[in-house]
Amino acid sequence: MGAMKATLQDIVDQVHESYRTIGGINHISGPSLPSRSVVVEIMQDFESLIFPGYREEESLNHENLRLSISERLSRLACELTTQIRSSLRFKRVTAGEAEPPEPSAWAEAENLTMELLARLPEIRTRVQKDVEAAFAGDPASKSHEEVILAYPGVEAILIHRIAHEFWVAGVPLLPRMMSEIIHGKTGIDIHPGATIGDYFFIDHATGVVIGETTVIGRGVKIYQGVTLGALSVKKEEANKKRHPTIEDNVTIYAGATILGGRTVIGRGSIIGGNVWITNSLPAGSTIYNRPADYIMKQQGSEAPDWQI
Amino acid sequence: MGAMKATLQDIVDQVHESYRTIGGINHISGPSLPSRSVVVEIMQDFESLIFPGYREEESLNHENLRLSISERLSRLACELTTQIRSSLRFKRVTAGEAEPPEPSAWAEAENLTMELLARLPEIRTRVQKDVEAAFAGDPASKSHEEVILAYPGVEAILIHRIAHEFWVAGVPLLPRMMSEIIHGKTGIDIHPGATIGDYFFIDHATGVVIGETTVIGRGVKIYQGVTLGALSVKKEEANKKRHPTIEDNVTIYAGATILGGRTVIGRGSIIGGNVWITNSLPAGSTIYNRPADYIMKQQGSEAPDWQI
Amino acid sequence: MGAMKATLQDIVDQVHESYRTIGGINHISGPSLPSRSVVVEIMQDFESLIFPGYREEESLNHENLRLSISERLSRLACELTTQIRSSLRFKRVTAGEAEPPEPSAWAEAENLTMELLARLPEIRTRVQKDVEAAFAGDPASKSHEEVILAYPGVEAILIHRIAHEFWVAGVPLLPRMMSEIIHGKTGIDIHPGATIGDYFFIDHATGVVIGETTVIGRGVKIYQGVTLGALSVKKEEANKKRHPTIEDNVTIYAGATILGGRTVIGRGSIIGGNVWITNSLPAGSTIYNRPADYIMKQQGSEAPDWQI
Repeated sequence: MGAMKATLQDIVDQVHESYRTIGGINHISGPSLPSRSVVVEIMQDFESLIFPGYREEESLNHENLRLSISERLSRLACELTTQIRSSLRFKRVTAGEAEPPEPSAWAEAENLTMELLARLPEIRTRVQKDVEAAFAGDPASKSHEEVILAYPGVEAILIHRIAHEFWVAGVPLLPRMMSEIIHGKTGIDIHPGATIGDYFFIDHATGVVIGETTVIGRGVKIYQGVTLGALSVKKEEANKKRHPTIEDNVTIYAGATILGGRTVIGRGSIIGGNVWITNSLPAGSTIYNRPADYIMKQQGSEAPDWQI
Repeated sequence: MGAMKATLQDIVDQVHESYRTIGGINHISGPSLPSRSVVVEIMQDFESLIFPGYREEESLNHENLRLSISERLSRLACELTTQIRSSLRFKRVTAGEAEPPEPSAWAEAENLTMELLARLPEIRTRVQKDVEAAFAGDPASKSHEEVILAYPGVEAILIHRIAHEFWVAGVPLLPRMMSEIIHGKTGIDIHPGATIGDYFFIDHATGVVIGETTVIGRGVKIYQGVTLGALSVKKEEANKKRHPTIEDNVTIYAGATILGGRTVIGRGSIIGGNVWITNSLPAGSTIYNRPADYIMKQQGSEAPDWQI
Repeated sequence: MGAMKATLQDIVDQVHESYRTIGGINHISGPSLPSRSVVVEIMQDFESLIFPGYREEESLNHENLRLSISERLSRLACELTTQIRSSLRFKRVTAGEAEPPEPSAWAEAENLTMELLARLPEIRTRVQKDVEAAFAGDPASKSHEEVILAYPGVEAILIHRIAHEFWVAGVPLLPRMMSEIIHGKTGIDIHPGATIGDYFFIDHATGVVIGETTVIGRGVKIYQGVTLGALSVKKEEANKKRHPTIEDNVTIYAGATILGGRTVIGRGSIIGGNVWITNSLPAGSTIYNRPADYIMKQQGSEAPDWQI
């Protein structure tokens, strides 16, 4: 082990040196960044507050309820303030802006935190509508409880509704970390910038991508593997609307791809599975791929290939 | 912080009030629901019992083996009884049915638990065949150990085989929670109602969806992104067979979609990648998309667009 | 509970007996296998060393930096040596080869560990280029920090760059466990055998599959749902090149499938979404699906179905 330890010290030196020479991926002596593990806790607290009695071990009853809310909200307010403080300081430092004095920087983070928490009842109202849409939209669902306990699409839209509030309030990093944590958990990638109306339901979930400037109306239902994306990826066009608009009551089946900032899918339209769309459709459209030319062979027959 | 605390108390009051006014997403003073974290532990215990020596830190040997099984099974029996008890009580309460007296309610949950655990040797026999199928079916696999340690498709079918037993026994919530936890981990969404034969292998895993009333024969192999789904999503048809039947020894390549409760894919058929099928195919069919009309341009040439 | 315990002992006996009768899925009294939970810790240590200050709770500064590197590298060296030792012993035992004496077996694992750790500065240089490519390649990215904190494609390529080193060094099991743990987290399935050039970027991530013998050049960008796979799955051909070659500066859009060991996509090519390719393309090709024949209906109109 003697030789090994000597070598290990060499490697320590080399790694140390590489922190000096290889830039752009180090965060040393900089302002502290939001912590992934704390963001995970914040997301769990939000879920517990929005779905009381579903996400915790102990049972809630009307006697302990107010105390439970109070404890959870106090902890959440404290954690959120710290993470928002880190996010805002990061933004100013990287933009070369001056930091305000410590007390006003904290007050700023506290105010943003309290403004968001004050919207919790409103967010609960919206999430309740999403649960309703999931229960109504999936014939396999047996109860609202099952929808809340076991539907990844419901968890993803709950987190999006919160992340989007942070996004609108101008908080950097934190909402993107929330969206990627839930992306990892559910396979649903919703950019926090996306604007999504009430009664939204994603079934089966895996592989859905919804881009930053997407606008979605009320009562929209989408399935696994749907992409609402951009046509162009030029960095200088990043401030334009690059993703589509989906009007009220549109259904988009699995694997469909809808691209482009000027693409508008009119209300009540039905988009078939695997359809690829880069142009607008009028309200009430039903569009699906003409059955493809299949090549089909039959084993054990002498017949030539045939098509169906 | 004084002003902040005052405001926080206001928010506590508003959230508290919203639990009264916003219904359908609260679980307060109700029967306790299955706990997600306990369900995760139950799934880990099942994996450890089915693959002895693979999922634990300490080594198993023939001396400590019986003790290890006994300890794990005792804990699992206890946890399962509690979760099944919660699931059954939930079903009765929501259906407005009377609860049996406490001792018989516990006896019911215990009996279901013991019946399932007694099938563990049989489940191990079936999982062993799935491991065999995975090893044989993937040319990149180097050993059975690699298949057991690193194949998400193997973990997903193992959990499905257990969740399906609970489903058949009429236990609500618990099997769906199991299927969604493994969906989150592997990207494979198998409804616990699906009936799946021996030697089943899913390669690469991500994005697979297998619906509630799907029936799959022996020796079926499917790839990433395959959907076995429903044509119709009307809630009132939820009790019909809505998902396809896949007969023995069918292979379904990546991204294929097979829909409809009357769709039967005959034995030995090969379904090509991205194929979209809503009708039955006879045994021994090979079907793939006719190569699409591509549009192809060549950079630096003056030639017009050409097709291949 | 008396009757229950009796039955539980019966089940213990039956499960115990099944470990004797059902082979191929047990690991009892064998050499210890790599531990999944330790592999997760190893991956976290690598991430912390490559992105200093991003993945830890406490802040790094220039005073504590060398100590922090030293502590982390020492722990990592120890854990890696143990896991590599287990992996190599497993390979020899299953191949029926004789184990070397204990001291030389440990020396072998230590040497492999130190060789890999000595490449950390080089791996950091490569990961820095991948971060650069992600920032440049996604118009929605706001900062390098966001890319490092919230891009699953960046985390997946970082882990791949390490797993590939183990793969090239002939370490079994460990690199595949790493690739499947990150697959579960990100939805990106990169086999550790794949050879991937600098400045690689996967956007949106979910559903990407990159096979064992794939070769990818510099500056390649791919999107969600892309498969770089094999045409044939015969086990006896497992040692051939079965997966495609993608030359420098190719972009592959969402859902495209490129198959076959002889398929070469020439440099600078652009592969459109959902394209299915099993043949080579010359450099500078742009290929996309001719817009499909859609069937489109308009609600409320008496007009016949029409096509766009």
